[in-house]
Amino acid sequence: MITQNVKDALKEIVGEENYSDHVIDLVAFATDASEHKQRPDCAVWVTSTEQVKAIIKLANQERFPVVPRGAGTSLAGLAVPAEGGLVMDLGRMNKIIKISLDDRLVVVQPGVVYADLDKKLAPDGFFFPPDPASGMVATLGGNVATNAGGIRGAKYGTTRDYVLGLEVVLPNGEVLRAGGQNIKSSSGYDLARIFVGSEGTLGVITEIILKINPKPTETATAMATFPTLADAGRAVTQIMRSGILPSVLEVMDRLAIKAINENTDLGLPEVEAVLLAETDGFTAEEASFQIQKIIDLFKANNASSVEMATDPAEAAALWAARKSVYSVLTRLNNTVVVEDLAVPLSKVADTLKIIEEVGEKYGLQMPTVGHVGDGNLHPGVAFDRYDEKQRETAHAAAAELLGRVAGMGGTLTGEHGIGLAKAPHMHLEHDPVSMETMRSLKKLFDPHNILNPGKMALEA
Amino acid sequence: MITQNVKDALKEIVGEENYSDHVIDLVAFATDASEHKQRPDCAVWVTSTEQVKAIIKLANQERFPVVPRGAGTSLAGLAVPAEGGLVMDLGRMNKIIKISLDDRLVVVQPGVVYADLDKKLAPDGFFFPPDPASGMVATLGGNVATNAGGIRGAKYGTTRDYVLGLEVVLPNGEVLRAGGQNIKSSSGYDLARIFVGSEGTLGVITEIILKINPKPTETATAMATFPTLADAGRAVTQIMRSGILPSVLEVMDRLAIKAINENTDLGLPEVEAVLLAETDGFTAEEASFQIQKIIDLFKANNASSVEMATDPAEAAALWAARKSVYSVLTRLNNTVVVEDLAVPLSKVADTLKIIEEVGEKYGLQMPTVGHVGDGNLHPGVAFDRYDEKQRETAHAAAAELLGRVAGMGGTLTGEHGIGLAKAPHMHLEHDPVSMETMRSLKKLFDPHNILNPGKMALEA
Repeated sequence: MITQNVKDALKEIVGEENYSDHVIDLVAFATDASEHKQRPDCAVWVTSTEQVKAIIKLANQERFPVVPRGAGTSLAGLAVPAEGGLVMDLGRMNKIIKISLDDRLVVVQPGVVYADLDKKLAPDGFFFPPDPASGMVATLGGNVATNAGGIRGAKYGTTRDYVLGLEVVLPNGEVLRAGGQNIKSSSGYDLARIFVGSEGTLGVITEIILKINPKPTETATAMATFPTLADAGRAVTQIMRSGILPSVLEVMDRLAIKAINENTDLGLPEVEAVLLAETDGFTAEEASFQIQKIIDLFKANNASSVEMATDPAEAAALWAARKSVYSVLTRLNNTVVVEDLAVPLSKVADTLKIIEEVGEKYGLQMPTVGHVGDGNLHPGVAFDRYDEKQRETAHAAAAELLGRVAGMGGTLTGEHGIGLAKAPHMHLEHDPVSMETMRSLKKLFDPHNILNPGKMALEA
Repeated sequence: MITQNVKDALKEIVGEENYSDHVIDLVAFATDASEHKQRPDCAVWVTSTEQVKAIIKLANQERFPVVPRGAGTSLAGLAVPAEGGLVMDLGRMNKIIKISLDDRLVVVQPGVVYADLDKKLAPDGFFFPPDPASGMVATLGGNVATNAGGIRGAKYGTTRDYVLGLEVVLPNGEVLRAGGQNIKSSSGYDLARIFVGSEGTLGVITEIILKINPKPTETATAMATFPTLADAGRAVTQIMRSGILPSVLEVMDRLAIKAINENTDLGLPEVEAVLLAETDGFTAEEASFQIQKIIDLFKANNASSVEMATDPAEAAALWAARKSVYSVLTRLNNTVVVEDLAVPLSKVADTLKIIEEVGEKYGLQMPTVGHVGDGNLHPGVAFDRYDEKQRETAHAAAAELLGRVAGMGGTLTGEHGIGLAKAPHMHLEHDPVSMETMRSLKKLFDPHNILNPGKMALEA
């Protein structure tokens, strides 16, 4: 519980206009894009590192929780103030401080929206590759805090592969400048990357230096339908070991196709699986050569139909189904939890099968899409949140799924993070030594557990 | 000082045949490829994680230093037992445990030599991209411990971008399994990458899971000479922002060219700078398109000559000079310290100029080569190690160079690590908060300072 004295001190730091404890703001900040909810005591919109510093010092002295927040698009409850306290909205720290093509990097504040950076870079032919589905609104601070991925992971990796440096306000109120503007460095411990994927539990990121890439000018797109999951899975494995590297390789399963057909007029063939591939390069030949290899492997693995796009309009048509998925999912019920597993590439087909089995066992619809080029699958679990029993069933199904995935060497989350949603399941993937190491890191950086408490099973 | 009792216990753990305190072994293990030297008390060749565990437990109990060692190719003294104690040679843990093209990864023991892995992957068209110059002998454990880079960093990144998982024996004797066999994961803190570049100070790496890439089948090569450093520097900047991504972009300066001409019959034109570029792709068109862009930019920036290779024999001829450099350098004097700076890309030309100035000021030859695509420069500082005064001069020159580089936002080391060589200079790059954070991490993992003590300025 934050006292009135502390509230006054917070107003002093950020100014009246950047402070709120109005119920409408507290309700808004109680949740993110997950099903989790907890009201904070108050909220601030910070505009400078100095303000963050002052607030963190105050929090350490008065021992109240601080939950850093970007756009609140977390699907796993990372931005939910699980133990109340203060929500610190970083969305107004949204300056692109520097774009240096000469140095192949950008320096941004954490509140910069992914799409805004992309728009600025596009005219010069550059891009920041990891593009979360929420990129139109999600902030780069959040991308770093979750190690955001997206559909280009197989070829371009995830956020952690692009973070060159960070400014972080540590829980003790000191400002750490880790890394810098060098593309290559082996100088001391890699402090910057400790904060990538740390979900706001180790420090508040106030500035980010990201490596950027020249964006390939040419792409080619192909889509195929498969009569069995095994065929599609085998196609994925063979593509990934065929000697080329697709920039996108997406799957949609039977239930996802059915949901699309029921909610759009796209009229897809109701097969067991659809694969969508994109290749890229600086020449049309490079994109074509790779897509042709993929098409050959689609055919060799019993694809019932293969379509290839040769111009942007055709490509957009092939993408239409995939792009409709998330909005279609929201129509299935009042709640759809988008799960986020990743498995070794050879286990993709088995995992799709397991998802189907678990859905049937619990009587739930679990339509699945995923970035199969890097083994990342998103089963959507649709249920009625006002039906206690359905909610329990949905959680039980998710728990069984996570257990089976962890048991085969998979990971609880490919790109959404642990947050509240996966915290109870951490032990399924991480053994006691690993958990103890994570907890000791948390204690080292944040001995009073000020920052985003209650996440990642760090307190158990 | 390790007592006889402890020596006996060590023999018990590894077997007589894997233990030594013979003077010839102690002399060999006193140094690596750097100029630093300190004899250990004894040495063991370990063959299993269990042995490593038992030794670390013993070391913690008896408080003696343990220095993990691969092939000993460090240029910065990382493998030198600065405070005596035990050298733990991991070279016999050299099994490739698993190559899974289906999962796009390999699982190896730390003693596997880079080139041996490369040889195994080549027939299937895959590779592990970060290729240190010492790759014919250097071990992958050492690559991970230094975050090794190599000539392909601009396009392919460094070792840290490929480490999916590690098994590490922690200083408390527990075995940490961090990460795993998933290409994508955001599950908890990224423990594995904390150990990448940690120089054997936080744990002993006993197993490594590395992502591998399909190897582009086509390459194109071009070389150009430049009348001024400014021309070459401008060419580098313009290439890197031209929208393509060279797989290799190397520089040699006037003194490097002169040294090559004096020690080989290659007869290079004695210009101010040579740039060597390679591009790659899955099609000849992709490699050609990119090399043509580079050639155009060579010409636009006053190249006095440009050569392009269209077949492997011609490419080999262009590479001959660059590949001769390290052996040529060793002829300059009895000691050549290969420095290892990296700077933001736009500072490459300025840095080459600074290296020249520092060399002149101290009356030292400092021929320079470097991976300019990622801003990584290697000035060679040649001197007579038996001449106390020359040695001091060489160190003073290096210190000035590092100070100026750090002052312009560069880093002390692009790929060799800090070790003993750069430890006194850490404060030039890392501020007190950063140093304090590194020291607190070291204390957290290794409270009794057992592992590779004396490195990275962690004890100051």
